[in-house]
Amino acid sequence: MAYLNANYLKLKAGYLFPEINRRVKAFTDANPEAAKKLIRCGIGDVTEPLPQAVREAMHRAVDDMGDSATFRGYGPEQGHEFLRHAIAENDYRARGIQVEDDEIFVSDGSKCDCGSILDIFGHDNRIAVMDPVYPVYVDTNVMVGHTGEADESGVYAGLVYLDCTAENDFVANVPSEKVDLIYLCYPNNPTGAVATRERLTQWVEYARKNDAVIFYDAAYEAYISDPKIPRSIYEIPGARECALEFRSFSKNGGFTGTRCAWTVLPKALECHTGVGNEKKPLHALWNRRFSTKFNGVSYITQRGAEAIYSPEGKKQVAALIRNYMENAAILREALTASGLKVYGGVNAPYLWVATPNGATSWEMFDRVLNELNIVVTPGSGFGNAGEGYFRVSAFNSRARAQEAADRFAGKKW
Amino acid sequence: MAYLNANYLKLKAGYLFPEINRRVKAFTDANPEAAKKLIRCGIGDVTEPLPQAVREAMHRAVDDMGDSATFRGYGPEQGHEFLRHAIAENDYRARGIQVEDDEIFVSDGSKCDCGSILDIFGHDNRIAVMDPVYPVYVDTNVMVGHTGEADESGVYAGLVYLDCTAENDFVANVPSEKVDLIYLCYPNNPTGAVATRERLTQWVEYARKNDAVIFYDAAYEAYISDPKIPRSIYEIPGARECALEFRSFSKNGGFTGTRCAWTVLPKALECHTGVGNEKKPLHALWNRRFSTKFNGVSYITQRGAEAIYSPEGKKQVAALIRNYMENAAILREALTASGLKVYGGVNAPYLWVATPNGATSWEMFDRVLNELNIVVTPGSGFGNAGEGYFRVSAFNSRARAQEAADRFAGKKW
Repeated sequence: MAYLNANYLKLKAGYLFPEINRRVKAFTDANPEAAKKLIRCGIGDVTEPLPQAVREAMHRAVDDMGDSATFRGYGPEQGHEFLRHAIAENDYRARGIQVEDDEIFVSDGSKCDCGSILDIFGHDNRIAVMDPVYPVYVDTNVMVGHTGEADESGVYAGLVYLDCTAENDFVANVPSEKVDLIYLCYPNNPTGAVATRERLTQWVEYARKNDAVIFYDAAYEAYISDPKIPRSIYEIPGARECALEFRSFSKNGGFTGTRCAWTVLPKALECHTGVGNEKKPLHALWNRRFSTKFNGVSYITQRGAEAIYSPEGKKQVAALIRNYMENAAILREALTASGLKVYGGVNAPYLWVATPNGATSWEMFDRVLNELNIVVTPGSGFGNAGEGYFRVSAFNSRARAQEAADRFAGKKW
Repeated sequence: MAYLNANYLKLKAGYLFPEINRRVKAFTDANPEAAKKLIRCGIGDVTEPLPQAVREAMHRAVDDMGDSATFRGYGPEQGHEFLRHAIAENDYRARGIQVEDDEIFVSDGSKCDCGSILDIFGHDNRIAVMDPVYPVYVDTNVMVGHTGEADESGVYAGLVYLDCTAENDFVANVPSEKVDLIYLCYPNNPTGAVATRERLTQWVEYARKNDAVIFYDAAYEAYISDPKIPRSIYEIPGARECALEFRSFSKNGGFTGTRCAWTVLPKALECHTGVGNEKKPLHALWNRRFSTKFNGVSYITQRGAEAIYSPEGKKQVAALIRNYMENAAILREALTASGLKVYGGVNAPYLWVATPNGATSWEMFDRVLNELNIVVTPGSGFGNAGEGYFRVSAFNSRARAQEAADRFAGKKW
C-alpha cells in the first residue's frame, strides 16, 4: 500500500499571485478603458533581452553540438570546468575571496538549489527564516517535514521567524535562542534591503558559536552599487566554516528563462553526524547529491553563462543592471514625491514602500490599482511582517517604469 | 548544532567506473602500443551530433531571446505548453494512449526525476528494485533513509531486490511478498531486455491489487523495433491508476549534454495519505513540487526538444537510432561468432553477454581488455545478479563499433 508524503498536505495554497490575478481581472473586466492603461510593477522577472555576448556564445555552442568532434554528451554533473573556473576566478578570487573551482556547483537555478540543499541535512535541525520571506524557503521545509501545521496567518509551527522591519533596517537580528540552519537573503527580495558588513559579521559569529549553518542567498548581488556592502558572505572572516552561498545568472545576465545558477560549498564547512561530537564536511555530500540526482546543466547554457565573464559580456550585463537601477531611481523619486516612505531600490531592484495612513497592504494594492491602474505586490503576501508595505519592481521597460513613476508622482494619498 | 543527513554516510563509494578506469590506466601504462588501439564499448552516452532540426530550432530560440518582444523569462515550471502538447500528442495520443498535456512534466533529465519523485512519497513504503540495477534507483533511496546499511556485496538492508536473469528473460518476476514502490526499466539498462505485454500486465495487476506504484523508466523506448513490445506502460489497461513513467530525449535526440526529459503523472494515480483509508491524487503533489523546487527547463532547450517532433526531426532521430542499432547488430553477430551467448541488442542499444567457462565478470573484463584491447562493463558492477555477464554498448561511431566487432569475431574463448 503506497503512501504519499503527507507533509505536502500541510502546504497552504499559493495565495498571493492568484489573488492578485483575481483582483486585477475583476478590475479590468469592470473597467475596460482603464485596463488598456494597466502597468504591472509586481513583476519579479527580467524583461530585457539576453546579452549579445551570451547569445553569440550559445550559437557557437549549438554548432559544437552538430559535429561529432565537438559534440558534448554527459558533462560533469557539477558543471564544466570552464564555467566553474570562470565563476570562481571572476566572482570570488578577483575580489580577494578564497573560493576554489571545485567549491562551485553549477545548477539550473537558485530555486532548485534552495530546495535541494535540504537533502544533505538531517531532520533535527531548527530552521530560521526571515519574515517577510521568499516562500520557497518555507515551503521546501514544510515538504520535508521540518514543520507542523500552519496557523490562519500562514505561520508554520516549528519554524523560527526573524522579523525584518524598518526598526532593524530589514536585516534580521541574531536571535537569542539557538537555531541550526538560517536563511539569509541579501540584497533582499522583497524588501530591497542590503546587509552591512557589521550585521553579517554578527551572523557569522553567531553561526560559528552555535555550530549553525547560514544559507546565504545572494541572487541579486549584481545590483549592489555601494562598495561598502559585501557582495558575498565569504567577505566575512570565518564564513567558509559556517556558510554556503546561492548565486544565479537570472538577475544579472537575464537567465530566468535560460536557467543557470550555482552554489558555493566551501570544503571547510562541516556538520555534526549525530555520532558523539563527530563532524564531517558537507562538500562530499553535496558532491554526491549532484552525481546521483542531477546530470549537469546544458552545455549550451553553460557556454552562454561563461560569456557573461567575457569583456563584452561584462559590459552588456553592466548596461542591463544600470537600466533596471535607473528605473528604480525614477520610481523611488516619484514614490517619495507622492509622500510615501520608500525603502530599498538603491542596491536592489525592488522598492519596499510603507502604506500611508495605516492602510493594510491589500487596501493599498486596491487603491493603486483603481486610482493609478498600476499593479504592485502587497507586502503581507510575503509574511506577517510585510503587512503595511507594498513592493514595486524595477524590472520593466523604461517607458513603462517612467509612466508608472509619472502616475505615482502626481498622486497624494 | 547543525546535523548533516547521516544516510549519505551509508552510501558505498561509486566503485564500478572508477575501478574500470583504474584497470584501464594500469593496462595502458604498461602497454603503450596496445593503448593506441583501445576501443571503449563501455559507454552509456551517445556519440553522434544533435539532429539538424534540433540545432536549427535552438538557433531560432537563441535569437528569440535577443528581442524584448520575443524574450522569454520564467516559463511555467512544468514546461511550455508547446512542448507538453507535442509530447502528449506524438508519443501518446497518436499511438492511441490516453495522456493529457498537463500530465506531462518536462524536466532536465530522467536521472533528476528518478531522484525527485521520492519527494512526494512517504517513508514507510517498501521499495523493490531490479538486480542488476541502474544505481540511481538504489542510491536515491539510501539518501532519504529508506534502507539500512549495505553488506559487503553492496546489498542494502530494507530493499527488495528482484533478480533479472536468463531464466526470467531479464524481466523481474512479480514478487510473492508485498511491495509498495517498484522500479521497472524497459528497455533495460544494462541488460538490453524488453518486457512483453504479458509480463507488464502481470505487474500492473500486481500493483492494482496491492495499491502499489510502478516507476516505469522507459528512457530507451526509441530503440524498440518489435511492434509487439509496449513502448509505454500506459499501453497496459489500468496502468493510469498505478504507474508513472519516466521518458527522456537523451537517447533518442542525443540530449545527454542538452538535458530534457519528462515524467507522465496521470491524474488517476492516487496514494494513501495515512489517514484511515483516504487516498489522494499524486498529480497535485508532483505539480506542487515542480512549482516550488524547480523553475522549468531552458526555453531554448524546450524549443530544441519540440523540433524532435517535426517531420525533419523525426527522420533525423530515426536515422540516429538506426545507426546505433546497426552497430548493435554488427556487435551481436560478432560476439555470437566468438562463441558467446548474447542477450539484448535487438530492442535496446546494450548487449548483455554471458561470460564463457564460468569466468567472473571482472575476469572477463580483464581478458577482453588484455587480449582484444576493448573496454566493456562488468555485469557484476550493476548488482549481484549481473555476475557472469558483461555489457557491450552500441553507442559508438560505426568505425569503432566495426573494429570492435572484427576483434571479437576472430576470437575463441
